[in-house]
Amino acid sequence: MPTTHTRRYVLAARPATTTGPLEDGVLRYEDHAPVPAVQDGQVLVRVAWLSLDVATRGWMNDVRNYLPPAPLGEAMRALGAGVVTQSRHPDFAAGDRVSGLLGWQEHAVVDGSTLRKVPEGVPLQAALHVLGISGQTAWLGLHDIGRPAPGETVVVTAAAGAVGSLAVQLAVAAGARVIGVAGTPEKCALVRELGAVDCVDYREQDVATAIAELAPDRVDVVFDNVGGAMLDALLPHLAVKARVVLCGAVSRYREGGPAPLRNWFHLLPNRVRMEGFIYLDHADRFDEVEADLLPRVRAGELRCQEHVLDGLKAAPDGIRLLLTGTNHGKALVKLG
Amino acid sequence: MPTTHTRRYVLAARPATTTGPLEDGVLRYEDHAPVPAVQDGQVLVRVAWLSLDVATRGWMNDVRNYLPPAPLGEAMRALGAGVVTQSRHPDFAAGDRVSGLLGWQEHAVVDGSTLRKVPEGVPLQAALHVLGISGQTAWLGLHDIGRPAPGETVVVTAAAGAVGSLAVQLAVAAGARVIGVAGTPEKCALVRELGAVDCVDYREQDVATAIAELAPDRVDVVFDNVGGAMLDALLPHLAVKARVVLCGAVSRYREGGPAPLRNWFHLLPNRVRMEGFIYLDHADRFDEVEADLLPRVRAGELRCQEHVLDGLKAAPDGIRLLLTGTNHGKALVKLG
Repeated sequence: MPTTHTRRYVLAARPATTTGPLEDGVLRYEDHAPVPAVQDGQVLVRVAWLSLDVATRGWMNDVRNYLPPAPLGEAMRALGAGVVTQSRHPDFAAGDRVSGLLGWQEHAVVDGSTLRKVPEGVPLQAALHVLGISGQTAWLGLHDIGRPAPGETVVVTAAAGAVGSLAVQLAVAAGARVIGVAGTPEKCALVRELGAVDCVDYREQDVATAIAELAPDRVDVVFDNVGGAMLDALLPHLAVKARVVLCGAVSRYREGGPAPLRNWFHLLPNRVRMEGFIYLDHADRFDEVEADLLPRVRAGELRCQEHVLDGLKAAPDGIRLLLTGTNHGKALVKLG
Repeated sequence: MPTTHTRRYVLAARPATTTGPLEDGVLRYEDHAPVPAVQDGQVLVRVAWLSLDVATRGWMNDVRNYLPPAPLGEAMRALGAGVVTQSRHPDFAAGDRVSGLLGWQEHAVVDGSTLRKVPEGVPLQAALHVLGISGQTAWLGLHDIGRPAPGETVVVTAAAGAVGSLAVQLAVAAGARVIGVAGTPEKCALVRELGAVDCVDYREQDVATAIAELAPDRVDVVFDNVGGAMLDALLPHLAVKARVVLCGAVSRYREGGPAPLRNWFHLLPNRVRMEGFIYLDHADRFDEVEADLLPRVRAGELRCQEHVLDGLKAAPDGIRLLLTGTNHGKALVKLG
């Protein structure tokens, strides 16, 4: 008997601010929303995992972004992974493990062309971190823009986060000397375990002073997930021809908007390249990146700590966790 | 009879600030300084023209830069052009027209390996603008980093300046839609004459508002010679995958230091590349660039307005002109 109803969170209203906390009424929980009939080319998926990302907060705003704003009145846009229960797309059959933009709901009808199959030999949720958005983002940002040479110094901010921890591991594997920046002693300990030579606890230490000591020959690559004041503190310590990967800017949700870059001038005499980066631009390369990541994931060489929240109703809290940096690793919602 | 003495300006002391005006005592005029004997590999040049550049001010400071600070007690570092009067270098003979780092002096002894010959069919001082630092900078910044495609919109700041006016012409020649930003109606008129579709007078108009109107489809390339508040005003108007060429930052001398970039966040969702650029990095390509520029210069297709100051004693005033933006075109000192 086909699934006819689903629990879901609908984006009911735009938040009052683009960076502030979510008001009541932005997200509306629905216990019994109708699931549309599966049309030709579509697939019905039983969603097992949802990916919580800082980007999710940005998609709620009605502002110019790399994707159109998430539509009002529909299940909130989010990456998810699950199992196909019905298919009218030739590439998929019931039982296939898939990932894609499934949304904050337990049953999703989506175009098959937007889905990827989850490789065998890895847990389903790996498609949402080490083999998904986090791993793809870390790989493409590090290797396409950062391009660390062996022996170069790489600084990764939010280094205990999902993307950051993978960027640390990939940079170490590339032979770089990696320094992390993170927000608690526990997070810093994790970053060191992943192979970083050291990790700066930005709540306890002055980042600029610490980096100057840890990288007396300056920094060749910054893989930045934070932006604002933290990025600004790093700019005077860049080496000639350094690369700054602008991968995320969680600071804008913490500092009441993005703090200005006062030290931008250092980019000029040092001929620094600073480049914004969105992993979705590189969908044509996901297969290539996955082919590089997959054996390393299967061999246990790439780790991603999971911060699992239980049940759809926990999703809004998950976004709050991310924006305050109180998650530990990749924030996921495990459904039903 | 060999030249034994020269007039020169010696860098006698570092300026008190890195961006403020030059105090008395920073530069010392000498009427009768000894010229060293020409050694093997060296050349004696009768300097005819000196290039005044915003960079000259930066070289006076004892701060990390793309070149070491200009040495104290020597003729102030500067590009110049002149005629060889004595040579102990196999590639040069008396009468050769050359350019290089000749310094603020009328007679310079330099290593022949640091000199370039000035091509025939162009005036000597062209080696200091359209075929020299200004033309090389405009060409390399525009074509290596900016890379405008035909039909793309390019904004050039300080568009009436030496580098700016050449960047305008090269971008127009590349098929781009060019908008200039300059500081007086006369400068804007010049920029339009050079082929820009329009020019924003930043003293009369709000740059952000004007650019939003002139480039409703946003800006693909910014060729920036100003930095600070002006660059910041442009960032929210960048197109997806836009390129920002950080070529100069004259604003730091006008705003009491470089003003912060408040709008840096726009680089991220728009995947903008912002890159600092120093033409001296690309010395191995000067021949290639010159080969492209030379026929266009000879054909009169590339113009560079000259702002000529007369005699060595005018050089310090020339630097002040540049830093206040009151020069008109390439600032040069004509000697003796």
